[in-house]
Amino acid sequence: MSAARPSGASHEVKPESVPLGPLGAAAVPVQELLCVFGTGDFGRSLGQRLLQSGYRVIYGSRRPHSCGLLPQGAQVRSHAEAAKSASVIFLCIHRENYDLLETLKDQLKGKVIIDVSNNLKKNIYPEANAEYLQRLIPEAHVVKAFNTLSAWALQNGPSDANKQVYMCGSRAEAKQAVAGVATKLGFTVLDRGALAASRELEDFPLQLFPEWKMPLWLAFGLTTVLFCYLLIRDVVYSYVEMGEDKSFRIMVTLANKVFPIVSLIMLSLCYLPGIIAAFIQLYRGTKYRRFPDWLDRWMLCRKQIGLLALGFGALHVLYSLIIPIRYYVRHRIAASMILKFKENITSELDTTVAWRSDSFYAMGILGFVLFLLLGITSLPSVSNALSWREFSFVQSKLGYLTLFFCTFHTYLYGWSRFLYPSIYRWYTPPGYMISLVVPTLVIILKLLIVLPCVDRSLTRIRRGWERADPDEDSKKSLLT
Amino acid sequence: MSAARPSGASHEVKPESVPLGPLGAAAVPVQELLCVFGTGDFGRSLGQRLLQSGYRVIYGSRRPHSCGLLPQGAQVRSHAEAAKSASVIFLCIHRENYDLLETLKDQLKGKVIIDVSNNLKKNIYPEANAEYLQRLIPEAHVVKAFNTLSAWALQNGPSDANKQVYMCGSRAEAKQAVAGVATKLGFTVLDRGALAASRELEDFPLQLFPEWKMPLWLAFGLTTVLFCYLLIRDVVYSYVEMGEDKSFRIMVTLANKVFPIVSLIMLSLCYLPGIIAAFIQLYRGTKYRRFPDWLDRWMLCRKQIGLLALGFGALHVLYSLIIPIRYYVRHRIAASMILKFKENITSELDTTVAWRSDSFYAMGILGFVLFLLLGITSLPSVSNALSWREFSFVQSKLGYLTLFFCTFHTYLYGWSRFLYPSIYRWYTPPGYMISLVVPTLVIILKLLIVLPCVDRSLTRIRRGWERADPDEDSKKSLLT
Amino acid sequence: MSAARPSGASHEVKPESVPLGPLGAAAVPVQELLCVFGTGDFGRSLGQRLLQSGYRVIYGSRRPHSCGLLPQGAQVRSHAEAAKSASVIFLCIHRENYDLLETLKDQLKGKVIIDVSNNLKKNIYPEANAEYLQRLIPEAHVVKAFNTLSAWALQNGPSDANKQVYMCGSRAEAKQAVAGVATKLGFTVLDRGALAASRELEDFPLQLFPEWKMPLWLAFGLTTVLFCYLLIRDVVYSYVEMGEDKSFRIMVTLANKVFPIVSLIMLSLCYLPGIIAAFIQLYRGTKYRRFPDWLDRWMLCRKQIGLLALGFGALHVLYSLIIPIRYYVRHRIAASMILKFKENITSELDTTVAWRSDSFYAMGILGFVLFLLLGITSLPSVSNALSWREFSFVQSKLGYLTLFFCTFHTYLYGWSRFLYPSIYRWYTPPGYMISLVVPTLVIILKLLIVLPCVDRSLTRIRRGWERADPDEDSKKSLLT
Repeated sequence: MSAARPSGASHEVKPESVPLGPLGAAAVPVQELLCVFGTGDFGRSLGQRLLQSGYRVIYGSRRPHSCGLLPQGAQVRSHAEAAKSASVIFLCIHRENYDLLETLKDQLKGKVIIDVSNNLKKNIYPEANAEYLQRLIPEAHVVKAFNTLSAWALQNGPSDANKQVYMCGSRAEAKQAVAGVATKLGFTVLDRGALAASRELEDFPLQLFPEWKMPLWLAFGLTTVLFCYLLIRDVVYSYVEMGEDKSFRIMVTLANKVFPIVSLIMLSLCYLPGIIAAFIQLYRGTKYRRFPDWLDRWMLCRKQIGLLALGFGALHVLYSLIIPIRYYVRHRIAASMILKFKENITSELDTTVAWRSDSFYAMGILGFVLFLLLGITSLPSVSNALSWREFSFVQSKLGYLTLFFCTFHTYLYGWSRFLYPSIYRWYTPPGYMISLVVPTLVIILKLLIVLPCVDRSLTRIRRGWERADPDEDSKKSLLT
Repeated sequence: MSAARPSGASHEVKPESVPLGPLGAAAVPVQELLCVFGTGDFGRSLGQRLLQSGYRVIYGSRRPHSCGLLPQGAQVRSHAEAAKSASVIFLCIHRENYDLLETLKDQLKGKVIIDVSNNLKKNIYPEANAEYLQRLIPEAHVVKAFNTLSAWALQNGPSDANKQVYMCGSRAEAKQAVAGVATKLGFTVLDRGALAASRELEDFPLQLFPEWKMPLWLAFGLTTVLFCYLLIRDVVYSYVEMGEDKSFRIMVTLANKVFPIVSLIMLSLCYLPGIIAAFIQLYRGTKYRRFPDWLDRWMLCRKQIGLLALGFGALHVLYSLIIPIRYYVRHRIAASMILKFKENITSELDTTVAWRSDSFYAMGILGFVLFLLLGITSLPSVSNALSWREFSFVQSKLGYLTLFFCTFHTYLYGWSRFLYPSIYRWYTPPGYMISLVVPTLVIILKLLIVLPCVDRSLTRIRRGWERADPDEDSKKSLLT
Repeated sequence: MSAARPSGASHEVKPESVPLGPLGAAAVPVQELLCVFGTGDFGRSLGQRLLQSGYRVIYGSRRPHSCGLLPQGAQVRSHAEAAKSASVIFLCIHRENYDLLETLKDQLKGKVIIDVSNNLKKNIYPEANAEYLQRLIPEAHVVKAFNTLSAWALQNGPSDANKQVYMCGSRAEAKQAVAGVATKLGFTVLDRGALAASRELEDFPLQLFPEWKMPLWLAFGLTTVLFCYLLIRDVVYSYVEMGEDKSFRIMVTLANKVFPIVSLIMLSLCYLPGIIAAFIQLYRGTKYRRFPDWLDRWMLCRKQIGLLALGFGALHVLYSLIIPIRYYVRHRIAASMILKFKENITSELDTTVAWRSDSFYAMGILGFVLFLLLGITSLPSVSNALSWREFSFVQSKLGYLTLFFCTFHTYLYGWSRFLYPSIYRWYTPPGYMISLVVPTLVIILKLLIVLPCVDRSLTRIRRGWERADPDEDSKKSLLT
């Protein structure tokens, strides 16, 4: 491909017609020439990567003769010259300097312009950078792409979170050309639709787990409140009433009360919004009216709440399994055994206690393993491999089974203890009772919903077009 | 884009030529108009989603003036009018009403028709819905797509198992147009080939873990049989012969015997079919004859069997780790210690027992960690990142190592116990002996296969083209 | 489609123009005819799969009348005849026989040739097979594809590591045709760019965890050295100095010292290269000079080192959790308890020891759970779903937190023990001290780097184009 410079701007030349135009005769590939505007960090890294992948690179610069460290093998020209010589132009300059492109309108006509820019904060401009650019040079084909990559990723090649190039643009051919370049550079391309999506793409690199924010605050809040509550009941109470210093129990004993409570409450909070939604639908008699905003938001972060609950559950499992190797526990067991022997007490095996204790552990283990299964199926690659029916079977049926096992595990922990007044220190109920409120409520409401008569109404509403319509006559037409 | 209605049906107009036709001059995108036939639940959800994604939507209905709750912003027309105004038509009506489309043949000519239909059961029609539709209107381009999505997914956007749009169709351009729409709606498109694949796509939403059915039944059967067997040996025997009630052992002790046995047997059943296949190939002297059906089916569900075995193994690990915190165990240890002290027995540390016990645990742990590794590499995203050589190295070499560790773990558990007659209660062998039969067999047969002489024959058969041919002369031609 | 044979070679006929040419009038698909050169194992399996997927298959063979077991339904012709009848040709012959294609130049002109070949070793030819082929027949469109699949995968359909077809080629239309076939066969296509990538594709099936080699050797080396060191300190020392046989401690006690030490050292080795790189950049005052090769290689295998560290950490967790069910431990506890009772020692609960012991376990558990989180986010499907900012937050911030927890866990293990001379058997420090050297160094250096003054310089260097340039005047131009 001879990157011959055209003599005049009015004479439209497309030296790089490969991706857009008809097929040339040559089967042997010629190195394509790409243009990069901007010689900053990103522009340099990009140019280097393009050169390594077998492209030729021409930089466009305001001062073509003094722009420092450019990758070896790249040419530098003025913006106008560089633009003319290539059909695909990477725009690696700040949004503030976009206005210089207005003077290049003629040279950029019909060219594919890749906007790689990001902003430092969300919503500082009324318009996405790429849309602003398209408005400035309406006759170019602007494609938003590569902005989610770091300069480091371009230098070192695709890996981990840096494998994907998100792209959007209004011109299919332009996007195809960009996708071709990205693929040759070794990236995976994800087309996000029209240029209107560029705002979303520009916000993407700024986000830090947006959908985790609420669940994390919830977990943090629950943990703090419960920790303080149990600190008062377990440590402060002993100190005030009996003068004993039990503060050493904070690290494990107390933590191992807080974690399972948070885990169980959050697990049940995954299933509560679904139940509330069902009751709202039953009350309204239709599924076509929107849920209140808080319910919508709650339903959208159920997965994150569940995964955090699983994390707390895993902590609970590990904290419980180290119980027998703790110094405090060993000391207590030894002390009680020596006491027993001194006072010559021989305790018989109480089979009820054995049943209860073993059932308690068994429920906990089964609940946790099911919970792990729920966690595994929510891994992106696993859930993608499931059909919708399979996914909802696991998350709904097995999810309720998990909730049941974990709640039953907690009831078995409590057993008949709630009858002893001594457990209500300073008139406060113990932690495990608090943890049982929400899951018990969820299970009872769920049982209500699956009652045949309620279930029938609800199913009718969810398939729903039959009843929602006031005009009985139009029932048939809904099918057609 | 002016969605002007053509005056006559014979005058073929394609107002929506963007995805199929040549490029228009306008660079600024105009909202594309899409047509939806059917105003039922799915049709409405789809229309709403299309409108949200920046499309204009026109509904086709039998009674355009009485079809109730349609998304705001959508138009409604008669089928014929709606069909004429758009080049892509979503067909959200039941298969029973497809015949009405025959009257619209002229308007549908050359249009892309997206069949989103599903059936309530498999195989109720001799022909897939989409193929039947294509036969009815041969001059339209039928594409099967969107049928694996729920109306809920369309309302709420892609997430988890609802991210992918499976698509098939015989016309590349039609599929490309559909893929464009699906991508703009935020879905990932998976092209499943020609329209002939539509039966498969229509069955997809109906399936519930089809490849897990056999392994789950196997696990369930093994668990039930072993549970009953061990219940008789451990609980019923004690009750009948000694009058002791040991039923409290069911929840943990018994379960923790059943789970490892099921796990070990199922793990070895992953490797048995490969060995049987090798012997069949050795016997036949060729790899080109098909294996018996049962063997084929068995080989295809090895992964599922292995994952279930891993699940049972994980249960076994957790059940074993809670041993020291069980009431029963603590009671027994205390009792034995008090007895020892009372009778003034001082037991020396038996280093052989210490070796055996520690090796037993070490083998179990190593086996389980390797087993976890096998499980992780069978996650779709991990196995996709491996080359075939790497995957088979892990699943075969490390798999056999896992089997060996787990079997050795079980042998160390048994140790010399098989010599004591008291263990054969009611002339039945203990559970661990039963669990050793299949894995021992698999390991012995595998050792036979890797003997140099057998291995050489087998490798020859598997590269295989040299020996399978009766005509020695044609040997060379097989390479070319 | 009438696969009519053209009468003369000069008369260019493209009977299979579907994927490349304009649209035919027929909407009903006709079975496409594909040609396979070579009737070996791969050729047969491929043909069978093609037939099953609805293609017609014609084999090209040197001896069309004596080539044995071909799949039912396939035709066999001479190479020249077969080539003429199809537009896509699979080349399933060895590279040594490629020269026969030179005689078919006319028939292969303009055809898509799919090179499926692999070599037995890397770098035995100066040129990739596909590039050599393209040089031999420059007027054909060579596409490298299907070479990463096994014949077994072709016979049995896509599964696990056999789902993806890697493809490269210089002609977009040719690649599109090949992608179409692969998709119809049920595979996922990954386009790896121009034909120049074929060397990489040909090496792919030969590789066995190349990026794991160094980390595995590191882990193996560390394990061996530490095992010998601790064997001498714990077993040989006892035997020589006190005549006690403590060899039974090898299986669990010793292993559970080696595993956490290896895990902690390797975890800190994940973070050391980043710190070294930062100091190099600070020293050089620029980020545009390449790091030394060893540092580059080290940085590229940090993920693998980390995952191995996680594996050793998991072993440590399991080995620690079985402590209370070990025979040796139970025996020791019983002995100490009986001794205590005999000598009538009543030990008080030491709250400092209780605090230390509980903190020790709590730190270990928190460190391990965070470590698991790091492992989960490095699963391909999870890291793909994260933005770069999220990924680096998890891997850097949470990674250092993990390192801190684990190091603190080890310090708590040591506590004041380092003051007792008896611990320095034969003047050697205990294992846990050795494990603390590298992580302590890493944490101190990291704290140095995050000092405001150092951090400011480093951030400036990393955004970096401002300072690297000697010419202060060109600063502005870097932005444009």
